Amino acid sequence: MKKYSEMSREELLGLKKDLEKQFEEIKAQGLALDMSRGKPGTDQLDLSMGMMDVLAGGAELKCETGVDCRNYGVPDGIPEAKRLLGAMSEVDPDHIIIYGNSSLNVMFDTVARSMTHGVMGHTPWCKLDKVKFLCPVPGYDRHFKITEFFGIEMINVPMTENGPDMDMVEKLVSEDEAIKGIWCVPKYSNPQGYTYSKETVERFARLKPAAPDFRIYWDNAYCIHHLYDDNQDFLVEILGECERAGNPDLVYKFTSTSKVSFPGSGIAAVAASKANLEDFRKYMQIQTIGHDKLNQLRHVRFFKDLDGLHAHMKKHAALIRPKFEMVLEILDRELSGLGIGEWTKPHGGYFISFESMEGCAKAIVAKAKEAGVVMTDAGATYPYGKDPKDSNIRIAPTYPTVDELAKAAEVFVVCVKLTSVEKLLAE
Amino acid sequence: MKKYSEMSREELLGLKKDLEKQFEEIKAQGLALDMSRGKPGTDQLDLSMGMMDVLAGGAELKCETGVDCRNYGVPDGIPEAKRLLGAMSEVDPDHIIIYGNSSLNVMFDTVARSMTHGVMGHTPWCKLDKVKFLCPVPGYDRHFKITEFFGIEMINVPMTENGPDMDMVEKLVSEDEAIKGIWCVPKYSNPQGYTYSKETVERFARLKPAAPDFRIYWDNAYCIHHLYDDNQDFLVEILGECERAGNPDLVYKFTSTSKVSFPGSGIAAVAASKANLEDFRKYMQIQTIGHDKLNQLRHVRFFKDLDGLHAHMKKHAALIRPKFEMVLEILDRELSGLGIGEWTKPHGGYFISFESMEGCAKAIVAKAKEAGVVMTDAGATYPYGKDPKDSNIRIAPTYPTVDELAKAAEVFVVCVKLTSVEKLLAE
Repeated sequence: MKKYSEMSREELLGLKKDLEKQFEEIKAQGLALDMSRGKPGTDQLDLSMGMMDVLAGGAELKCETGVDCRNYGVPDGIPEAKRLLGAMSEVDPDHIIIYGNSSLNVMFDTVARSMTHGVMGHTPWCKLDKVKFLCPVPGYDRHFKITEFFGIEMINVPMTENGPDMDMVEKLVSEDEAIKGIWCVPKYSNPQGYTYSKETVERFARLKPAAPDFRIYWDNAYCIHHLYDDNQDFLVEILGECERAGNPDLVYKFTSTSKVSFPGSGIAAVAASKANLEDFRKYMQIQTIGHDKLNQLRHVRFFKDLDGLHAHMKKHAALIRPKFEMVLEILDRELSGLGIGEWTKPHGGYFISFESMEGCAKAIVAKAKEAGVVMTDAGATYPYGKDPKDSNIRIAPTYPTVDELAKAAEVFVVCVKLTSVEKLLAE
Repeated sequence: MKKYSEMSREELLGLKKDLEKQFEEIKAQGLALDMSRGKPGTDQLDLSMGMMDVLAGGAELKCETGVDCRNYGVPDGIPEAKRLLGAMSEVDPDHIIIYGNSSLNVMFDTVARSMTHGVMGHTPWCKLDKVKFLCPVPGYDRHFKITEFFGIEMINVPMTENGPDMDMVEKLVSEDEAIKGIWCVPKYSNPQGYTYSKETVERFARLKPAAPDFRIYWDNAYCIHHLYDDNQDFLVEILGECERAGNPDLVYKFTSTSKVSFPGSGIAAVAASKANLEDFRKYMQIQTIGHDKLNQLRHVRFFKDLDGLHAHMKKHAALIRPKFEMVLEILDRELSGLGIGEWTKPHGGYFISFESMEGCAKAIVAKAKEAGVVMTDAGATYPYGKDPKDSNIRIAPTYPTVDELAKAAEVFVVCVKLTSVEKLLAE
């Protein structure tokens, strides 16, 4: 394979002609495929259909302390749900609060609470001139949307295979009191599928923030979402690590069953120090009458325990692993050695991160759309939707069928090639 | 019956001795009864057990537009749920957003949103020196807790049988730009069971607030919660009334199925003008991935339509009507004509409001507790927990069994009598 950058203008022009022909042929197929969303496929949802049955037929609807889950009460979660999501989070159930569907909602409310009421007695952020968050990039667009919505200034921190650039994190956090948080997806990160190294977690736990109300927003969305039985990533548990480092209040850890049971009807949890949980509870006891306890019970009856969760996640992996492998195989076959893109090969999670040549991502995504393949908007993985190099594209392979995905990936690589050729010819 | 106030000191002393004996006898029974919470009884919850079956056994889990309710999407509610709660709210489904469990959560988030982002482009309340709310009193404690939590100053407005004192509401709202809202439970009000009159609703719809971001928080919690087949209260629908009055954006209307299906697992809705709903949606699309659509589907499959809801509420009424009647019968028999208390006789809702002699409510509730009967804390029905006359007590008759309730009511009347005698003797 010859690198595109080493091709002559004539070679590139010839290639362009070929690619344009391919592109027109694809367009003529009238495809309508979607690789944009980290959305489980229908076959994955079918794995949890038993959840609809466990409370049927007059089943007992009391939790283990005898409370009737149909009625009011137990606002911070039934004990067995705390145990289940505690095990999933590798945290003692005493350090867990259970919420409703959508851990994103819990993160949003946490920022909202910090704005209006401050963190553990500190000044509410809405009373400060400036509040900043660190954003490892590329990262999860919905995180960035939250901080943007509250007018919080976002600072990009480059991601590496081992997590965020910790030299930069340490420096910024220790120097600037306006920096109040950092968004992290520490395991099988969105979009790269990277897992923070032991050293990274240890350095996080030992941060010396200038702001006493600085918190790490640790979104452990993919904690048990492995693709392989072997070849699993390991993430050091940060709550314990913070405690050992004498920083027990430094982190909020979020998790949910959105991609375990049903994205539309899961349960979420936050794990934190008892002092932090008091902050959460004070807010929650005013905010709500309580979250859906029957759905908590449903999850516990269906999954039973951590072994049950792991066994279930293997079934998910069996369905989505072939999809990841299919995309990676096509990227490898079609793009290796051409010097026009790089991509990650995750061991878990929901995404593959693709880096095109600089200045090509928007054009590639636009071309793919023209050809009937919807990708995540280019730029979405950066704060304010602004990818400074215009190079990152998030590939979400889980929702289409394997056949659809094969087609979509073939379209994608043609779009990458054509855009890259056009870029080189324009230089 | 002779009024206590007309009794001689000797008569009162004799009465006191009798009552103290009765009180000691009650205490000796070691009762443990609860009339504190507006909580459905177990028999009421059993009415909705079919909800646990409607999605079982491999039932189709798509909503009518074909969206798989198990997956992401449709953040503002599936169409059939909008139709069901629209019918319940007497509002077009286009003016409805569906939320998760707890309409209180929606109200809280609405205040929180107004604090940080303002109402329809107006200045965020957290940037203002002073924000005030009107609070019809006695009222619902959880409403008042929300505004207290956000540091909003609360102004008491007396309730009448026809709703809040509208002369006062109109005057205050038109004069003071800092007044941004009013808490209303317009039908079968908490705690009185009053329903706002036609004139009251019309005057609400025609308010001319000084603040352009003033909103009526219309918590229609008991909209279909009648106690009788005949003798039902009628409430004018306010959203249409506001539109007719040229004030389409004046009101947020909240409702939920908490006391229709399960308090622990209901669905909530907000109804408002399209401009207001845009505010809700802008927030919601950042705040959450979406609310539980399977629970929405469960409600629709079980209740089907408004007729289904009404038929279901008749079953509730059949269970709780005897409880209300039992309490009212005991209050009538034991306290009528004594001049030591007055109480409401609601046609629906969850509460009876009791007015003791001034300065007696706290003592009555404390005595009842001593005798093993838990009542709502005296003062809870007022902002900051401060009942200026110390006279209002909320009676919640739904949760105990009829037998328990009879005992509890007997205890209560003895406590009222004894406290009143002590009060008169101390004067």
